Amino acid sequence: MEKSESAIAKLAEAAQVTGNTDDSETELPKVFDRTHLDDPRFEDYSKILKPRTAADLSRVLPPQISSWAPCGSYPSPFKSNPERFNLGLSFVSDEETVLVDIIGHVTQPTASREFLRAGPRETISFHPKSVKAAIVTCGGLCPGINSVVREIYNTLHHLYGVEEVYGIPFGYRGFYSPELEYFRLTDKNVAGIHHQGGSYLGSSRGGFDLKKIVDAIEDNNFNQVYIIGGDGTQRGALKIHDEVVRRKLKVSVVGIPKTIDNDIALIDKSFGFDTAVEEAQRAIRSAVVEARSAQNGIGLVKLMGRNSGYIAMYATLASHDVDICLIPEVSFTLEGSCGLLQYMKSLLKRKGYCVIVVAEGAGMDILKDEVDISKRDASGNIKMPDIGLFLKDRINSWFSDQQGMEVTLKYIDPTYMIRSIPANASDCLMCGLLAQSAVHSAMAGRGGFTIGVINTQYSIIPMHELCSRGRIKVDVNSRMWHRVLATTEQPDFRA
Amino acid sequence: MEKSESAIAKLAEAAQVTGNTDDSETELPKVFDRTHLDDPRFEDYSKILKPRTAADLSRVLPPQISSWAPCGSYPSPFKSNPERFNLGLSFVSDEETVLVDIIGHVTQPTASREFLRAGPRETISFHPKSVKAAIVTCGGLCPGINSVVREIYNTLHHLYGVEEVYGIPFGYRGFYSPELEYFRLTDKNVAGIHHQGGSYLGSSRGGFDLKKIVDAIEDNNFNQVYIIGGDGTQRGALKIHDEVVRRKLKVSVVGIPKTIDNDIALIDKSFGFDTAVEEAQRAIRSAVVEARSAQNGIGLVKLMGRNSGYIAMYATLASHDVDICLIPEVSFTLEGSCGLLQYMKSLLKRKGYCVIVVAEGAGMDILKDEVDISKRDASGNIKMPDIGLFLKDRINSWFSDQQGMEVTLKYIDPTYMIRSIPANASDCLMCGLLAQSAVHSAMAGRGGFTIGVINTQYSIIPMHELCSRGRIKVDVNSRMWHRVLATTEQPDFRA
Amino acid sequence: MEKSESAIAKLAEAAQVTGNTDDSETELPKVFDRTHLDDPRFEDYSKILKPRTAADLSRVLPPQISSWAPCGSYPSPFKSNPERFNLGLSFVSDEETVLVDIIGHVTQPTASREFLRAGPRETISFHPKSVKAAIVTCGGLCPGINSVVREIYNTLHHLYGVEEVYGIPFGYRGFYSPELEYFRLTDKNVAGIHHQGGSYLGSSRGGFDLKKIVDAIEDNNFNQVYIIGGDGTQRGALKIHDEVVRRKLKVSVVGIPKTIDNDIALIDKSFGFDTAVEEAQRAIRSAVVEARSAQNGIGLVKLMGRNSGYIAMYATLASHDVDICLIPEVSFTLEGSCGLLQYMKSLLKRKGYCVIVVAEGAGMDILKDEVDISKRDASGNIKMPDIGLFLKDRINSWFSDQQGMEVTLKYIDPTYMIRSIPANASDCLMCGLLAQSAVHSAMAGRGGFTIGVINTQYSIIPMHELCSRGRIKVDVNSRMWHRVLATTEQPDFRA
Amino acid sequence: MEKSESAIAKLAEAAQVTGNTDDSETELPKVFDRTHLDDPRFEDYSKILKPRTAADLSRVLPPQISSWAPCGSYPSPFKSNPERFNLGLSFVSDEETVLVDIIGHVTQPTASREFLRAGPRETISFHPKSVKAAIVTCGGLCPGINSVVREIYNTLHHLYGVEEVYGIPFGYRGFYSPELEYFRLTDKNVAGIHHQGGSYLGSSRGGFDLKKIVDAIEDNNFNQVYIIGGDGTQRGALKIHDEVVRRKLKVSVVGIPKTIDNDIALIDKSFGFDTAVEEAQRAIRSAVVEARSAQNGIGLVKLMGRNSGYIAMYATLASHDVDICLIPEVSFTLEGSCGLLQYMKSLLKRKGYCVIVVAEGAGMDILKDEVDISKRDASGNIKMPDIGLFLKDRINSWFSDQQGMEVTLKYIDPTYMIRSIPANASDCLMCGLLAQSAVHSAMAGRGGFTIGVINTQYSIIPMHELCSRGRIKVDVNSRMWHRVLATTEQPDFRA
Repeated sequence: MEKSESAIAKLAEAAQVTGNTDDSETELPKVFDRTHLDDPRFEDYSKILKPRTAADLSRVLPPQISSWAPCGSYPSPFKSNPERFNLGLSFVSDEETVLVDIIGHVTQPTASREFLRAGPRETISFHPKSVKAAIVTCGGLCPGINSVVREIYNTLHHLYGVEEVYGIPFGYRGFYSPELEYFRLTDKNVAGIHHQGGSYLGSSRGGFDLKKIVDAIEDNNFNQVYIIGGDGTQRGALKIHDEVVRRKLKVSVVGIPKTIDNDIALIDKSFGFDTAVEEAQRAIRSAVVEARSAQNGIGLVKLMGRNSGYIAMYATLASHDVDICLIPEVSFTLEGSCGLLQYMKSLLKRKGYCVIVVAEGAGMDILKDEVDISKRDASGNIKMPDIGLFLKDRINSWFSDQQGMEVTLKYIDPTYMIRSIPANASDCLMCGLLAQSAVHSAMAGRGGFTIGVINTQYSIIPMHELCSRGRIKVDVNSRMWHRVLATTEQPDFRA
Repeated sequence: MEKSESAIAKLAEAAQVTGNTDDSETELPKVFDRTHLDDPRFEDYSKILKPRTAADLSRVLPPQISSWAPCGSYPSPFKSNPERFNLGLSFVSDEETVLVDIIGHVTQPTASREFLRAGPRETISFHPKSVKAAIVTCGGLCPGINSVVREIYNTLHHLYGVEEVYGIPFGYRGFYSPELEYFRLTDKNVAGIHHQGGSYLGSSRGGFDLKKIVDAIEDNNFNQVYIIGGDGTQRGALKIHDEVVRRKLKVSVVGIPKTIDNDIALIDKSFGFDTAVEEAQRAIRSAVVEARSAQNGIGLVKLMGRNSGYIAMYATLASHDVDICLIPEVSFTLEGSCGLLQYMKSLLKRKGYCVIVVAEGAGMDILKDEVDISKRDASGNIKMPDIGLFLKDRINSWFSDQQGMEVTLKYIDPTYMIRSIPANASDCLMCGLLAQSAVHSAMAGRGGFTIGVINTQYSIIPMHELCSRGRIKVDVNSRMWHRVLATTEQPDFRA
Repeated sequence: MEKSESAIAKLAEAAQVTGNTDDSETELPKVFDRTHLDDPRFEDYSKILKPRTAADLSRVLPPQISSWAPCGSYPSPFKSNPERFNLGLSFVSDEETVLVDIIGHVTQPTASREFLRAGPRETISFHPKSVKAAIVTCGGLCPGINSVVREIYNTLHHLYGVEEVYGIPFGYRGFYSPELEYFRLTDKNVAGIHHQGGSYLGSSRGGFDLKKIVDAIEDNNFNQVYIIGGDGTQRGALKIHDEVVRRKLKVSVVGIPKTIDNDIALIDKSFGFDTAVEEAQRAIRSAVVEARSAQNGIGLVKLMGRNSGYIAMYATLASHDVDICLIPEVSFTLEGSCGLLQYMKSLLKRKGYCVIVVAEGAGMDILKDEVDISKRDASGNIKMPDIGLFLKDRINSWFSDQQGMEVTLKYIDPTYMIRSIPANASDCLMCGLLAQSAVHSAMAGRGGFTIGVINTQYSIIPMHELCSRGRIKVDVNSRMWHRVLATTEQPDFRA
Repeated sequence: MEKSESAIAKLAEAAQVTGNTDDSETELPKVFDRTHLDDPRFEDYSKILKPRTAADLSRVLPPQISSWAPCGSYPSPFKSNPERFNLGLSFVSDEETVLVDIIGHVTQPTASREFLRAGPRETISFHPKSVKAAIVTCGGLCPGINSVVREIYNTLHHLYGVEEVYGIPFGYRGFYSPELEYFRLTDKNVAGIHHQGGSYLGSSRGGFDLKKIVDAIEDNNFNQVYIIGGDGTQRGALKIHDEVVRRKLKVSVVGIPKTIDNDIALIDKSFGFDTAVEEAQRAIRSAVVEARSAQNGIGLVKLMGRNSGYIAMYATLASHDVDICLIPEVSFTLEGSCGLLQYMKSLLKRKGYCVIVVAEGAGMDILKDEVDISKRDASGNIKMPDIGLFLKDRINSWFSDQQGMEVTLKYIDPTYMIRSIPANASDCLMCGLLAQSAVHSAMAGRGGFTIGVINTQYSIIPMHELCSRGRIKVDVNSRMWHRVLATTEQPDFRA
C-alpha cells in the first residue's frame, strides 16, 4: 500500500514539472508503468485510481480450477522454448485489469468497474500433453464462427503443443446424440475454414441436457470445453461450469459469446456484428436504388434484432442513405399527424422516395393490437406477424386506400444472406484474438469465464457476471441513438 | 471537493450492500451517474477516480475562441426547435471526459490521462446564419474522405441550418491558387460522394503557405475551417490556428486526422484504416493462391507503412494465412542461420510455399547497406530502393544462386488499389461520427482541436497535444505484436 | 449471280490446294471476304451459302424511314472528320447479315435465318444538328439500364455531335404526365450513372397510351425515340412505330430489349442477365452455408423467372453446388416415390443437407391444386401463392408430420438485391455496344427495329419479327437443360 | 444427295408459303430439323448450306482412337441406366457441326468453316471401369482452372462411373519428377475447390519432356489425359497425342485451352477471360479515383497481354471510363503533335485528369529504341523494360522537364491480383461445360482434340487445327477495335 501511496505522490510531483515531449520519440504505453512515474511525460496523467479492496475481487476474478480440483503448475511453453519464441511473447500478469466505465468528469471523481485483462500467463495449470479439448458451436449462424474454431485449434496445437482437439457436431446435442460423432480437428481439416461462412462443426438450437453433456465431458475426459454461442448458450455454459465444479472435475469451461445482434452487456461488440453491419449495406443500397428508380418509391429493409436494434442502428449510421430507422426500443405510431405514414408521405413529396430500415423486433406493440388473440396455434401461442411484411401491407394500403396515392414499395429481407457470409477482416482479427485469449486463460487454469472486448482491450469476464445481466438494449438516451436521429433527421413517431 | 468525497463515501457504502442484479432489466450506463450512487448495482464499481486540479486543465481542454475573439452565445437549434427534434437530442456537457489509460491493476492504484468528450453542446457560439465554413483535404488518398466531407456539410446544413459551406480544391494550395476556385457544397453535389473513393474536393501534398492561407481565410470571411489530413497537415493546421489567434480572428480551425497508416498517438484508429486492412486481404489472398499453386511458391505483398507497421500487422492478424510479417519497427537479417532466407527455405521444405507481408518502411537498415552512398541524385539525396522489389530480387537470387533451388516468387503491390476504394461500413460510420463531432465542437466555440476516437469514445484533443507527440510506431512489446508472433509463428530474424 | 457462281467455283478450286498455314501470322477474318477466295487457307471453308432471293428480304431488313417520310442523306461524321477519326472507324454495309441457325451437319445441307449486322453506316439520314432524341426506360429494374442510357447519350453527342438528348421520366407515362418533366441529358448528369444500379431516368410499369405518347413525340419534335423495356414494352414500341408510320413522321423508334429473365427469342442473352446469374451465386452460397451448418439442413433459393427458368438454370450451372433446380418448363410432383420430397429425404440421408433453386414460375400446376378457386379477390382473381413460401411450408410439414424428421430449412428470396445492382463488366460492355449499335442504325435512317446479339454478333432485328415470337422458354430437350441434369444429377420428378 | 436436294426443294417451296407465326407458341430450335421442312415458319430460313464432300472431313473431324488402337463399343450409361437418367440426357450425333463464319451477305453467297459439335454420344469407346484418367494444369494461373478440374472429375466419376481420376502435380514435370506424387481425386478433396483461385493441382511452366511424359502415361496405364494449358502447352499436347498414336496406345489426349489473354483462334473466348476483364475494372476504378482526386491526375493501368490486347480492349469497353487504350497491335508515338503525350496534355487541359490502360506488350517498337542492344544478359538476351514503368517515367519527365507542368501519375499493375481470383459465374459455367464436353468426347473415343466455344456452341476442334493457327491478335479493322475508338474517342497516335 505504501508503494502505491508513494506512486501517487510521485505522480503528483511529476505533475508539477513542466514536461517537454518534443524529444520523446515514442508514445507512452497504454499500460500504466509505475517505474516511470518520474517521467515528465506523466504530467498529463491526472486521474488517480485507488486500489480496490480484496473483498471485492470476486466480482472481477474468474473462477480458478485449482479451487475445486487439483491442478499442476508448469512454465508456459513460450518461456521454456526460447529457440522458437526467441523474440519473446511477453506475459500478462493476473493483476492487470481493464476499466469498463471510462467517461470521467473534469473536476468530479468517477468510478469504474474492471475485469481481468486477457493474455498468456507465465505459469499454466495444464500440461499441454494432458489437454483434451472440445469445441462446440450453438445457435444461429454468425460471421466468424469458423475463425474462432480454427484459431482455438491453432493456439492449442501450434502454440501450446496440445494434441487432442475435437469438434462437437451440431451444437449441445452433439455431446450425446448417438448418431453424431465427435471429430478430431487437424491442420488439414481446419485449413481454409476461416474463409467460409457458417459453422464447420455444425450448429443447432436447443439440445441442452445438463446431465448428458457433463457425463459426456467426464466420460470422454475432455478437460477444456470451448462453447461458442449466444445468451441462452452462455447460460447453459454457466450451468455446465457449475456442475463441473460440483463434480470437482478438472475442466475449464470457456464461453465465447456469439450474437449477431450485439446485445451483450459490457463488451464493445460481439464478433460478426461488424460484418453484419457491412453486409446489411448491400440490402440498403438495393432498397435505395429500387426506391429512387420508381415514382413515389419506398425501399423497406428488415434487419436482424429481435430484442435490440443495434444492427439497424449501426447499419443506418454507416449507410447515410436511410430516412427512417425503427428499432424495438422506440415505439412508434403509424397513423396520425405524428405517425410514420404521414412522415413518409411528406418525404415522398419532398424527395420523391424514401428508405426505411426496420429491426425485426420493432413495432411489437402495434403488432399486438393487430393480432386476434382468440386465435392461437396448437401450443396456445399467438404467432406474431413479421413486422416487415406487416409494414409492407399497411403502407401500401394506407397510400392506396386512404391517400389515393400510387407508391411502389420493395421489401427486402437479407437475414440469411447476412449471417452466412465469412467474417470481414476486422471480425477475422477479433475472432482470432478472442480465441487466443480464451485458450491462454484456460491453459492458465481459469474456468467459468467468457472472453470479450472491453474498450478495445481483450478481457476475461466471469460467466456469472455476464449471465446475470441479460441481453442489453439500445439506450435511447445514448449518444449513438441521438446520432441516428441526427443522421436520418427522423422525428419522433410516438403519439 | 466535499461533494466528491461524499460521493466516494457513498460508493464505499454502496460496496457493502450485497446487490442483486437479477431484477434489473437494463444495463448501467457507461457514463457514471452520481445520482445513482446508492444503487446496489454499483457494488462492482471499484476504481475511484479522484478529480484533477484546475491547474492541469490546459492539457485537457481545447482552446475556446471567446478567449481571443468576441463570441455570441445561442441556444442550440436542437433545443430551440422542439417540433423537429422532439425525440430530443441530448447534450454532452463540457465537463465529461474520456479516459485514455484504461489498464488498471487489481490492487494497485493507476492513473490515466483524459480528454474532453465530443458531442453537441447546449449553447453554441456561432449563429448558424453567420457561419461560412471551408473544408479542405490534404495529402494522399484514404478511404472515407468523402464520407467526412459530406457529413460535415450535412451536419452544418441540415442540423444547424448553416447555409454556406465551401470546398477548397486540391489541398492547401486551393486556398490561394488563382487557377483554382472554391465551390459551394450543396445537397445535390454531395449526394452519393460517400459511395466513391478518393477526395471529391481533390487533394494534394504540400502547398502550405501560412500567410496566404490565413489571408484567404480572412478575406473570404471563413469562420470555420475543417482540415482533413495527416501528420504534416495537422502541424500546418496548428500553425493556422496559432496565426488565427494572433490575428484575433473569430475562426474555428478543426483538424480531422487522416492517415491510412494509423500512426497517430492517443486514438484507437484513424478513419480508413479498417477499410485498408480489409482490402489488403485481397492482395494477401492472391499471394496465397499464387504461392500454393506453384512448387516452392512464394507470395510477397508490400503494404503501406513508411514509419509504422500497423497495416501490415493488422492485415496479418486478420488474414491468418501469412507466414512472415516484416515491419519497420523490427529489424531483420537476410542471411545467416537466423535470417529470413533460411527460415523461408525451411517453410518451403515443410509446407511447400510461404507468404510474406512487408511494410514499405521495413528493412531500411538492410537497404542502407545496399545503397552506394557515393551515388546521389541531383538534389544530393540517396534514393532508397523499394523494399518489395529489393526482397524479390534478393530472395530469387539467394535461392537460385546460393541454394540451387527453383522458387516461384510473385510480388504484389496493392497500394493504390487499397487507398482509393470507398470506406467500408465500419469506416463510413466512424467518418460520419467524426464529422458530426467536429461540427458540434466548432459550433460550440472551440478551435485548435482535432477529433479522434479514444477507447471507442469520440473525443476532442487539443491540436498541440496531438502534434507534440509525433507519429507513433508499433510497440514491439505490446500484446498486439505478440499476437502477430503467435499467429504467424515466425521467429526472431535479428542476428 | 455469275460472280457468286464463280466465287463458289474458286472456292472449290481453293479446296483442292493443299494449304500450309504455318507461315500465316494472322487468322482469317470471320467476315468472309470474297477477294481472298484463292487464298489456300480457304480450303477448310466447306459450307457454301446460297444467296437469298430479293423477295425474302422483308423478313430480314428493318423498315427504312425514307419509305414513309422524306429523309436527307449525309456523310457519316466519321468520314467527314478525318482529323478526329483518323485511325478510321470502318463502316458496316447494309448488306452484311448475321446467321441465326449455326448448327450444321457433316454431310447434309442446312439452312439458316439471318438478320442485318449492326454498325455505323457510311451515309446517315439525319443531320446531327436536327436530331432531338428521347430515351425512356419501362418496367422492372435490370442491371445495366444506366449503361445503355449513358452510352446512347455519349454516342449521339460525342460521336455524332447531336445536341439534344432528353430523358423521359418514369416510363411511358413520363411522355405525357403533367407532373413529370423531361430532362436534358448532359455530360455532367450522366457521368458515373453506369456505376449505379436502377434507372437514372426512373421506370414504371404500364402507362402506355398510344395517342398521348405519339402526340407528345410529335409535339416535342422528337425524331429518335429509344425505348428500353421488356416484352410488353417492345409490343408498345411496335405500336408507336406503326403509328409513326401512319402519321408519316420522320421518327426512328428503336427498341432495346430488357428482361432480366432472358426470355427473348433469337438473341444470345439480354443485358443484365449475366450480372443476375452472378449475383444469384451469392444467395446460393448463403443457402449452401446455411444447409451445411445444420443437421438435415435445407437451403431454398427462389430466383426470378415467371415464365422461363433461364436464371435458375444458368445460376445452377454456374454454381456447381445446387442439388435440385426447378423451373416452370418442367413440372414436378411433391409426394410419391418419384416426388421431390422423397428425393430430398434421400439426399439428406446421403449428404446430410441439400440445396434447391426454384424459379418463381415453377410448380404452377401444383399451386393450382392448392388454391381454393372459390375464394377470389375483389377483382375476381385467384391469387397464386408464392412458390418459395409454399415449398418452404410443404417441405417443413412433410418432414415433421409425415416423416418425423427434424429438418432446418432456410428460404432466401434475393430478387430485389439482384435486379438493383450495377452491371458487371461483361454486361457493361454489352450495354455499351447495344447502345452504340442502336444509335448507328437510327442515324442511318432505320426505324421500327430492336438491337440484339445473335451468335456473339450485334444485329438489327425488325420489331415485328421479335414481337411476333413472344417470350421463349427453356427447351427441355436442349443441351443446356441436359447439362443441368448432368450437373445436379437430379432425377425426373414427374409422376 | 438426292435427299438433300429434295430438302432444298422443300425449303424453296416452304418459302412460297405465307406463314403465320402467331399461333406457334415455341421458338424454332436452333438445330435445323429436316423433318419440319414444310413448317411455314421456315419461310424466313433463307441461306441454304450445301453438304461438304467427304474428302474435306479430315479438317473437321477429330482423330478417332479406334483408327490406331482397338476400342470397345458400349452403350452410354445415360442410356443403359434409365432409373437414374429417366428424364433423358439426349445425345448429340457425330454429324452435327457448328459453323464458324456466320457473317453472311444479303444477296451474295458466303462460305463457312465448321467443327463437330460437342456433347454426349450414344455409344462410348471406353468401359467406365477401365478408365484411368489424368489431369494436368500447365503455365500461369487463370481464373477457373479448378472449376475445370473439378468438373472433369465429377463428369467422369458421377456421370460415367469412372473410379480412377488422378491429379498430376505442378504441370508437365509432375508426370515424371521423382519428388512429386500423383494424387487421386475424390469427392472430398475436390469439394469446394471451384470457389478457390489458382490451381489445386499446382502448375508450372516448362518441364515438357515428351519421352518421359508418354512413358509415364504408358507405365501408369493412364488412358485419358486432360491437359489444361496455353498455346505452348497445347503444342506439347499435340506432340503427346502424336506419340501416343505412334505407339498405338489406347489413350485419349484432350486439350482444354487456357489463356487469360484470350489469344486463341476460332473460339469466342477462353475461360477466365471474362473474370479477368471484370477484375480489371477494379484497377481501372482505382486509377480513375486517383486521377480525379489530383490536380492534373493521371491513372495508368497495365493489364495482361504480351502479344495481344484483348484484355485491355475489353476492359476499356466495359469500363467506359478509360481515355486511352494502348495495345500491342497498334503502334504509337510519344512525342510530336500526334503523339500520346500531347494528347494527354490536351485531356488534362480539358477534363483535368486522364486514365490510360496499356497492355503489357504494347509499345515494343518504342521500347526497342530505348534499349541499349549492346548490353545483354548472360544468355545473350536483351531484356525489354516494363512498358508500364517506362511510360510512367517518360510521362513524368516530359511533363515536368519539357512542359513545366506538375502532374500526379499513379501506376497500377494488378496482374497477379487478377489472375489468382476464382472464376465469376459466367466463367464457372463455361468451365463446367468445357469439362463436360471434354469428357463426353474422350469417352466417345476421340483423342487429339481440344474443346472450345464457337459462336456460343461447345465444339470439338482437332488439335492440329488449333495449333497450326498460332496466337491471334486483335484485328484493328474489326468492329470491336473500332468500338474502342468510339468509346474512348482517342485519336491515332501513329506519326
